Amino acid sequence: MSEYAKVDSYLEKNLDKSLEELGRLVAQPSISAQGIGLKECANLVADMLRARGFTAEVMDTEGAPVVFAERKGKGEKTLLFYNHYDVQPPEPLELWDSPPFEPQIRNGKMYGRGISDDKGHIVSRLHAIDSIIATEGDLPCNIKFIIEGEEETASVHLHEFVRDNKEKLKADACIWEFGGVDHRDVPMQYLGLRGICYVELSVESLSTDVHSGLGGSIFPNAAWRLTWALSTLKGPDERIRIPGFYDDVKPPTPNDRELMEALPDVAEEYKKRYGVKEFIKGLTGGTELKMEEVFTPTCTICGLTSGYQGPGSKTVQPAFASAKVDFRLVPDQRPEDILQKLRAHLDAHGFEDVQIKFLGGEPAARTDPDDSFVRTVVQAAEEVYEQPMQIVPTVGGSGPNYPFVHDLGLPVATAGLGYPDTRAHAPNENIRIDLYLKHARHMARVIREFAR
Amino acid sequence: MSEYAKVDSYLEKNLDKSLEELGRLVAQPSISAQGIGLKECANLVADMLRARGFTAEVMDTEGAPVVFAERKGKGEKTLLFYNHYDVQPPEPLELWDSPPFEPQIRNGKMYGRGISDDKGHIVSRLHAIDSIIATEGDLPCNIKFIIEGEEETASVHLHEFVRDNKEKLKADACIWEFGGVDHRDVPMQYLGLRGICYVELSVESLSTDVHSGLGGSIFPNAAWRLTWALSTLKGPDERIRIPGFYDDVKPPTPNDRELMEALPDVAEEYKKRYGVKEFIKGLTGGTELKMEEVFTPTCTICGLTSGYQGPGSKTVQPAFASAKVDFRLVPDQRPEDILQKLRAHLDAHGFEDVQIKFLGGEPAARTDPDDSFVRTVVQAAEEVYEQPMQIVPTVGGSGPNYPFVHDLGLPVATAGLGYPDTRAHAPNENIRIDLYLKHARHMARVIREFAR
Repeated sequence: MSEYAKVDSYLEKNLDKSLEELGRLVAQPSISAQGIGLKECANLVADMLRARGFTAEVMDTEGAPVVFAERKGKGEKTLLFYNHYDVQPPEPLELWDSPPFEPQIRNGKMYGRGISDDKGHIVSRLHAIDSIIATEGDLPCNIKFIIEGEEETASVHLHEFVRDNKEKLKADACIWEFGGVDHRDVPMQYLGLRGICYVELSVESLSTDVHSGLGGSIFPNAAWRLTWALSTLKGPDERIRIPGFYDDVKPPTPNDRELMEALPDVAEEYKKRYGVKEFIKGLTGGTELKMEEVFTPTCTICGLTSGYQGPGSKTVQPAFASAKVDFRLVPDQRPEDILQKLRAHLDAHGFEDVQIKFLGGEPAARTDPDDSFVRTVVQAAEEVYEQPMQIVPTVGGSGPNYPFVHDLGLPVATAGLGYPDTRAHAPNENIRIDLYLKHARHMARVIREFAR
Repeated sequence: MSEYAKVDSYLEKNLDKSLEELGRLVAQPSISAQGIGLKECANLVADMLRARGFTAEVMDTEGAPVVFAERKGKGEKTLLFYNHYDVQPPEPLELWDSPPFEPQIRNGKMYGRGISDDKGHIVSRLHAIDSIIATEGDLPCNIKFIIEGEEETASVHLHEFVRDNKEKLKADACIWEFGGVDHRDVPMQYLGLRGICYVELSVESLSTDVHSGLGGSIFPNAAWRLTWALSTLKGPDERIRIPGFYDDVKPPTPNDRELMEALPDVAEEYKKRYGVKEFIKGLTGGTELKMEEVFTPTCTICGLTSGYQGPGSKTVQPAFASAKVDFRLVPDQRPEDILQKLRAHLDAHGFEDVQIKFLGGEPAARTDPDDSFVRTVVQAAEEVYEQPMQIVPTVGGSGPNYPFVHDLGLPVATAGLGYPDTRAHAPNENIRIDLYLKHARHMARVIREFAR
């Protein structure tokens, strides 16, 4: 019988209660992009931590508050959890089957905005902590939480917060906010994140929209200016044309390639799940597709807006146009540097009229796959998932792991309740309840094994 | 004393009553692009005509109904008025100083969506008719009205309607829906309209939006596909790159150039009114700017939409993107031909994934500046505006004059209450009340002089 039998039994018996708590957290909107409900959500999270005997502070920043919490344990070592309580905007609302902030359980899944990214992780980790306290009366090590409210808007103030609170955040290892299983239900250990540089490009060509019969032949059109400027950034060959953009790219190592080769092919899975007819760059699958997905920097248009967008036709020449653009960065690209190169590029192409608004950025960072803490987390998964975690040297997403890896000097391991159809950032975001429970079981083991 | 003294006196005395009637018409939304209130507005217009002793029919089409009305007069001749009761969408709502469908009078102007384009014209013409009936007991000629409900969506069914009802619409001359004074308050006689081909271009690259950290490096991005496709249509040199696009363009005649030279320079006026910093194509003003404005075909992006468009950042790769694009055509370009050439061009550039939805079109048409009816309308203005109308051989806007000129064989003259700051198609659309009255006075004269 597993030494975790009591813990597992506790987790299973109290699952409904934990999901109820998760429901309360999801029902509190906390949309960082729109500044909705952040303070309220931070207070709610702090209260949840205090209910477990943590000392919890809601600490102001120049943006959304950060929740810092700590509970001493029997041992000397300290485990730091990084999470975030903010969520992506719920739009487009009409594509949700149930309202995004009224969490609902259907067919073994629970739906709601932020339930996977990242509120489910917060509450399942609290559930794991409850199980240890309930069965052992105390924690085997110190546990700290840093739960920020700006992860979905590029964690603009977190780097500074970490630098200013190095002593407080001191720890021996860090569990990251996310993780999960792949399409085979194999738990994955993601050891790096790409960086990001997120900008809004905008053009104002006139002081007012004008009838297109008047302006079309003689006035500058904001939508055209934006279209032309964007098309200088990247062409259908997918090569980013900003001079110097690739200068600091560190290519993947042979070990990276080996780890990537060991991962299953994703091509068919992606085609089915996302309706991809053809991958870009002539990719068809195999290691090349997997490598390209995470080791190359990107330039993605996330949104376009200009003029009339309703049904039917409106013959108007727009005075204003804007695009949301994110650049995913790899080591050792730096967001400030990319921003400068973007400005220089636009100017060189005659697009001084295109304004750049910097909406946030962070560099990429990675943790060594051979670190002992990584091994602990990987092995602790075996009893829960019937296999150890599979190591992925880095992923395509971004997050503020840079200050944790480089300022605090911590190994950062990932683990979580995600799965391929979790729809983070999209309508009908959901978690599988079986994976919610597994994540709690895994976390209880990680806390104990780490403390030994 | 003018023979129109009684008419003028009637018009002035009953102005407030007429504006009240106009207010009721503007308060009835009738947005053809969005299918809102069309039937209701058609019935309201028909009732207004019946109140003047017209027989009025609300005739179904495959789109919005057409109001046809007729009242016999003493003479043999028949004057046809073409108007439309539909209006442009009122968005962006936040830029209106008063609600678009709650007409309001402020400082000698009256505001509301469609008040200038085209409801003000309808009611001021009814006001003119009232003045003649009130002072003479009858009309001096037959008067017909055709008032359609799809002008703002390219009059998709009007051409067929005109062809199917040639007998009913038989007339000797036609007064067009719009007209007005220029920035010097000189009344203008606009004798031609450009054609139009309005399309929606759209791309669906995936079955669902996807986290930009996943899709950026390997999935096709709808917004990028659209951006690249658009940028093949026209570059910053403003030359439209669709092969054969300019093939059927008939250049302006020496007489056109002479008429255009006689018109005042518009450069400074445009700069001030629309906040133009620089005209496109290196234009600075003079005859070249005036010629370019109306004698060249265009390709205008009227709207762009894709992905996230709210405040802040959302890291999503959009599955869908679309653009509204209008081509303004000159004689002898044909919309169906342009549509085919557009499709062939996109295919030739590898953009088979860009869908084209045709939202309406009509060819350009012009009336001879030397036509006797044109002279009548031009001269009738003199007593009202203290000068005859100035002739503009064609304008940049579009409208369905082609079937009236080419199927019914009518001279089509324009006259109206517009002025440069009327803001048709834009927020705070308005009319000047003094010009509303002048248009009614002008129309009363045109009806009488035409009947002689």
